[in-house]
Amino acid sequence: MMHFDGAVASTPVATLSRLDNYIAARDFDRPTLVMDLDRVADQYKALKSGLGRAAIHYAVKANPARQIIARLVDLGCHFDAASKAEIALCLQEGARPCDISFGNTIKRASDIAWAHSEGITLFAADAHEELEKIAAHAPGASVYIRLIVEVSMADWPLSRKFGCDRDMAITLLSYAKELGLNPVGMSFHVGSQTRQADMWIPTLDAMAAIWHAAQDAGHTLSMLDIGGGFPAFYGEAIDAPAAYASKVMELVTARFGDTVHIMAEPGRGMVAEAGVIVAEVMLVSRKSDRDMHRWVYLDIGRFSGLAETEGEAIRYQFETARDDDAMGPCVMAGPSCDSADVLYEKRPVQLPMTLKAGDRVLIRNTGAYTSTYSSVCFNGFPPLAVEVI
Amino acid sequence: MMHFDGAVASTPVATLSRLDNYIAARDFDRPTLVMDLDRVADQYKALKSGLGRAAIHYAVKANPARQIIARLVDLGCHFDAASKAEIALCLQEGARPCDISFGNTIKRASDIAWAHSEGITLFAADAHEELEKIAAHAPGASVYIRLIVEVSMADWPLSRKFGCDRDMAITLLSYAKELGLNPVGMSFHVGSQTRQADMWIPTLDAMAAIWHAAQDAGHTLSMLDIGGGFPAFYGEAIDAPAAYASKVMELVTARFGDTVHIMAEPGRGMVAEAGVIVAEVMLVSRKSDRDMHRWVYLDIGRFSGLAETEGEAIRYQFETARDDDAMGPCVMAGPSCDSADVLYEKRPVQLPMTLKAGDRVLIRNTGAYTSTYSSVCFNGFPPLAVEVI
Repeated sequence: MMHFDGAVASTPVATLSRLDNYIAARDFDRPTLVMDLDRVADQYKALKSGLGRAAIHYAVKANPARQIIARLVDLGCHFDAASKAEIALCLQEGARPCDISFGNTIKRASDIAWAHSEGITLFAADAHEELEKIAAHAPGASVYIRLIVEVSMADWPLSRKFGCDRDMAITLLSYAKELGLNPVGMSFHVGSQTRQADMWIPTLDAMAAIWHAAQDAGHTLSMLDIGGGFPAFYGEAIDAPAAYASKVMELVTARFGDTVHIMAEPGRGMVAEAGVIVAEVMLVSRKSDRDMHRWVYLDIGRFSGLAETEGEAIRYQFETARDDDAMGPCVMAGPSCDSADVLYEKRPVQLPMTLKAGDRVLIRNTGAYTSTYSSVCFNGFPPLAVEVI
Repeated sequence: MMHFDGAVASTPVATLSRLDNYIAARDFDRPTLVMDLDRVADQYKALKSGLGRAAIHYAVKANPARQIIARLVDLGCHFDAASKAEIALCLQEGARPCDISFGNTIKRASDIAWAHSEGITLFAADAHEELEKIAAHAPGASVYIRLIVEVSMADWPLSRKFGCDRDMAITLLSYAKELGLNPVGMSFHVGSQTRQADMWIPTLDAMAAIWHAAQDAGHTLSMLDIGGGFPAFYGEAIDAPAAYASKVMELVTARFGDTVHIMAEPGRGMVAEAGVIVAEVMLVSRKSDRDMHRWVYLDIGRFSGLAETEGEAIRYQFETARDDDAMGPCVMAGPSCDSADVLYEKRPVQLPMTLKAGDRVLIRNTGAYTSTYSSVCFNGFPPLAVEVI
C-alpha cells in the first residue's frame, strides 16, 4: 500500500507520484478531487494505441473539467456530449464540431437546433419521436440508432433506459431515411466497468447479428459506435488499457470487418485513475457495546461526490496514514443527516483500528463520475472541490 | 384532478391557486421549483396549533431557500441545522442562536468551535468521540443523545446510520457529565413520511422505556426531541397537519408527562406541499413493438432534483394539460445518460396516451428534499432552478 503522508519516514517523498506529492504538501478544508492531467494524457495514448483505427470520443460526462477537455483536444481526441452545455464546453476548448457526437438519445428540441447551428452533424436516437425532432431541427443530419443488448457481463450492467430492440432499430433506420436524415450506423453499450476484454464477446455477438440483419434488410451501415465500458481499477483485476483496447478491436474487426468506421466512448476508463479525492474522517463510533463493526463517517458521501456507491456498486479504495496498524471492518457513511447516505454496509471496508476523527483519507481512482454528481448544497455542504494539476 | 393551464376553458383561471396562476402565466426554460411562502406559513401555523407547547425546529435541510427561513423567523419558528452553512443562513435571516439546534450527530470539530463562538448551545451526539469533540470545542454545551429505535412504521424507515442503543445512550449521558457537558435529554426519529399519527405509537413506547431506564439510572432529563416524520401528500392518505400534530403530542404527553420540553423537527411536513416543479417531456417512446409500457423521459431526473425516487420510495404526483385524455402506464426516467436515472419502473405511472415531447408536466408537492439534492452539473444539466413567490 502506498503512503501519501510525507511525515512517514520510511517512504521518501521522492518516490511518491505527482498526485501524492501535491496532496501531501497541502491542507484541504473540504473534500477535494485532485486530477493529474498527465495521467489522463497517458491513458488516452494507451487506449489510442490499442484502439488503432477507431476514433476515441471521450464521454465528457465522466469529468468535464475544462483543463481535461483542452488537453484532450490537443491530443486529437474526439468527444461524446450528453447535452448542450457539454457541446459548448468542447467547442470553447477548441474541439471541431465534426469531432463531437451528440450521443444522448434524449434531447431537448431547442438543443438539437442549437447544436445544428453550431455545426454538429452526428446525433444518436432510439425512437421515432427523437428522429422527428432531429429531422425538424437538424435537417439532413447523420444519425445512429442505439440498441439494447441484454447479455452484459459488466460489473454494472445498464438498465433498459437506452436503446431499442432489433426490429425497432431496423424500422428506425428506414424511418430516418423517410425523414431525410442520413442513417449511418448503430451504437450499443457493453455496460459500465467491463473488466476484461473477453467480457465483450456475448454483446458483440448479439450486436453483429443485429448489424447483419439490418444489412440484409437493405441498409448500408458505415459506422459502429461501441460505446464505453472501459474499466478503472476499483480493487478487482482489470486488463491494462492498451492490451484491453487492442483485444476489443480485434473482437470488433472479426465481427464487423475492417472498413467500418468505429467510434469508442471511454469515460471512466480515461479519467478515473487520474483522480484522488482527499477526504477526512468526521467520526468513528459504535452503536452498541455489542456491535461487531465500527461506523466511520467521512466528510464526503453519496450526495457530495460518491453517488456511484449506490447499491455498493463501485467499491472505492481508501488509504490512510495508519494503514500499517491493525485493520478491522467498518461500515462507511457520509456526513449528511440523510439516512440513505451510507457508502458501504453490506460488505464492510477494512480500515485501521486506530482511525479517528480528523484523519485524512485518500480515495483512489475517483476521477470519473464524482465531481458533477455532487449536489449543489445538500445539508449545507458545499460541492466537491476540484483541483487540476 | 386540478388543471394548471389557463388555456383549458372549463377551468377558469380565477379558481386556480396562487402557485398555479403564477406557473400558468410563465414559460420556464429549465426545470424549476416554484415555492409558495404563504403555503409554508399556513403549514407552520397548522403544525404549531397542533403541537402546542412543543418548539418547532424547522429542519433546514428540507429546503434552505432564504425566503423560507426569513418567513419562519418572523413567525417565531426555531431551527434544526445540519451544518455550519445552515446555521450561518439562519443567523443571517435573523434567528437567535438560542433557537438553533446543531442536530447532525456527525460534526466537523472546527464547525463545532465556530457554532460555539456564534452562541449555539445545543448539540446532538450519539458517540463518545462526538461528545469529546463537543467538550473540546464547545465546553459546557447542552447535549442530547440520539437513539436508534427500530420499530418504525414509516413509509421510509431510517437506516441504522444515526443513534445508539439504550445501554450506550445511558453510558453517553454519564460520559457527557464527566466531560463537563450538560446532558439535557434524548432524541429519536420515527422515520420519514410517517403517514398517520398512530404510527408513532410503537416508536414512542420504545423511547419511553429507554427514557425511564435512563431516569432510573439517575439521569435528570428535561428535553425530548421527537424529530421529524411529519408527512406530505404523495398519493396516499395522510392526516391533516393540525390533527396529526395534536395527536402526536397527546401520545407524547401520555408517555413523557407535560413538563418535559419537547422539540419537533418537521421538514418535509412543513414545506413539501408548498412547492411544485415545472418540468417538460423530452421524449415518449417504446423500446419494441411488443412493449407494454411507454417510456416517458422528463427534463428532470434523479440527479437533478428527484433523488427521493430512489428505490421508488417517494411517489410524486404528476399533472399535465392532457389529463382528460385516455391514460396508460409509463416507465418514467430522467434526461441524463446515466442508466440509473430512472424514476418509476417497478410501479409504472398513469399518464395520458397523447403525451408528447414538449408537453409541460407539473410535479406536485415537491417543496422538500429536491432543490439541494440537485447535482451541480451532471451531464451538463444545470441544477434545479428555484423561484419563491
